[in-house]
Parts: sequence; C-alpha cells; structure tokens
Amino acid sequence: MTTSIRYWEDMELGKMEESAETFTLTAQAIKEFAGQWDPFPPHIDEAVAARTPIGQLFAAGVHLLSIIIRLSHTIPHEETSSIAARGWDQVRFHRPAVVGDILRAQVTHLERKEDHRPERGVIVTRFELRNQHDQVVLSFFNNVVMLRRPVVPA
Amino acid sequence: MTTSIRYWEDMELGKMEESAETFTLTAQAIKEFAGQWDPFPPHIDEAVAARTPIGQLFAAGVHLLSIIIRLSHTIPHEETSSIAARGWDQVRFHRPAVVGDILRAQVTHLERKEDHRPERGVIVTRFELRNQHDQVVLSFFNNVVMLRRPVVPA
Repeated sequence: MTTSIRYWEDMELGKMEESAETFTLTAQAIKEFAGQWDPFPPHIDEAVAARTPIGQLFAAGVHLLSIIIRLSHTIPHEETSSIAARGWDQVRFHRPAVVGDILRAQVTHLERKEDHRPERGVIVTRFELRNQHDQVVLSFFNNVVMLRRPVVPA
Repeated sequence: MTTSIRYWEDMELGKMEESAETFTLTAQAIKEFAGQWDPFPPHIDEAVAARTPIGQLFAAGVHLLSIIIRLSHTIPHEETSSIAARGWDQVRFHRPAVVGDILRAQVTHLERKEDHRPERGVIVTRFELRNQHDQVVLSFFNNVVMLRRPVVPA
C-alpha cells in the first residue's frame, strides 16, 4: 500500500497555487476582528478612519494575516508532512484592504532548505494576498518545517 | 494649549514596555480561533495534536500574532502619531504556546528611520510575546509609520 503524503523532498518548487475560496471584506468583519484583536481606531470607527490618509475603514494587519492563512487552507492539495511554521520573513502590508475588497491567496514554494535535524527540512514559501484588481495587499515568506521521507532500511 | 501626542521625533528608544494585561490560553480559545482562521488539525483536535512532536494542542501562529497585538494595546502610553504598520520582519515562533500558558507582550522601540516622505518617519520596534516562565514564544520587528512633528512656520 502506498501513501500519498508529500514529504519535504516531494514539494514542487516554482508553481503558483491559488485558494479555491475568496474572502469578501465587510465593514462588520473589519470592525469585529479589530475590536477583539487590534482596536486601533481607524479599524473600528468610520469617522476616525475618514480623517486618516487612507480615508476609510481598513482591515487590521493581523486580520489580513488570519484571512490569508484561512484562504491558504482552501488550496487543493494532498496531505503533506508539515509540522509547523518556524517563522515568517518580510511581512509587508502593501496597500490597505477596504470594505468590498474580494481577497484571494496565492502560494508558491520557492526553496528547499536543509535543517539541523536530519529528519526534517524547511520549505520557503511565498504567500500573497491579492484583491479583485490583482493588486498585492499583503505578502510574506513562510518557513515551513516538514518531515523528510523516512529512510527505508536496506 | 499644548497637545501630548507623541510624534516620530518623540519616541523613546531602548526602553522596554510591558502590557498591563495578560492572556491566558484555554483549549477553547485555541480551537475557536484556529477553527475559524487556521484549521490545521493539531490546533483543533487534541487527539491529532497528541501524535505530533509537540504532543498537545498548541495555538496557531496567527492566533499568537493576534494576541500580541491585542496585548500591545494595553501598554499605557500617550497618544502617538502612528499611521500604519508598513511591515514586520523576522517573525519567529520560538516555542509552542499551549493550554494554561499566561502570555504577555513586551515592546521596545529600537531605531528611528527616515522615510522617503519628509513628513513621515519609521520606528523599528521589537515585539516579544512571553509566557509565565519568561520564555519568548513569538518575536518580530514592527516597522511603524508615524507622522513627524509638523514644521511651524517662522
């Protein structure tokens, strides 16, 4: 019997995959998330937001990060040997995400790196959150720790 | 009349400030957040989590990021001229956060950087989320865009 799990060695590099679902931002969603996790006034009060350079309500950064992770789970793929995210590099909030924006995630595996533990490896993956105008709203590089293919005794 | 707002020039560097509040992780909080935003099985199912190297339920990365931002709002300070976060660098998930952990945020402004727009500046700030054993769970550097002190005409 074979298993279809994808190990570190099996991850295909350079191919962009897109989330099957999108996330449509509403004022209620922006205010509810920010009210609980990032109560910066321009995320929860339209009148305050109107006086900022952005000029309207915009989503909190941690909201956008939560949305991209949620959307990334809707990318169709086989089960992988991912253990955890070691960390993210160069998280950039390129432009505000505002009411009515329709967001989707694009994910591209870029690099396969050895780990100090021989049974593990790291895959560096580019995450992008794009809006309905195909503009990048948020991007970062995710360092995902994965199991390597088990060594079969000779 | 004077205003107490703190501009880019006014931010004190090198002094660590700590959140007035803490966040105690429960199994329900871990599972509810992950169920909505990061439904990776080890974040939502104790039985699956028990079979991972961590051996128990642990909080999603985006949950920890949301918690640290929420806690950072409880640091007592005067109003600042912050506009937005341009981005975060070197986000690192140092160790898992598990049920019963009591988390607090530590924030230290490290560096004052010029911006390409003369009326703005960037403050580089170290964020750390620590548990009840004073271990760092999560850390990153936040690049906060702020307004500079307005130039008063001579």
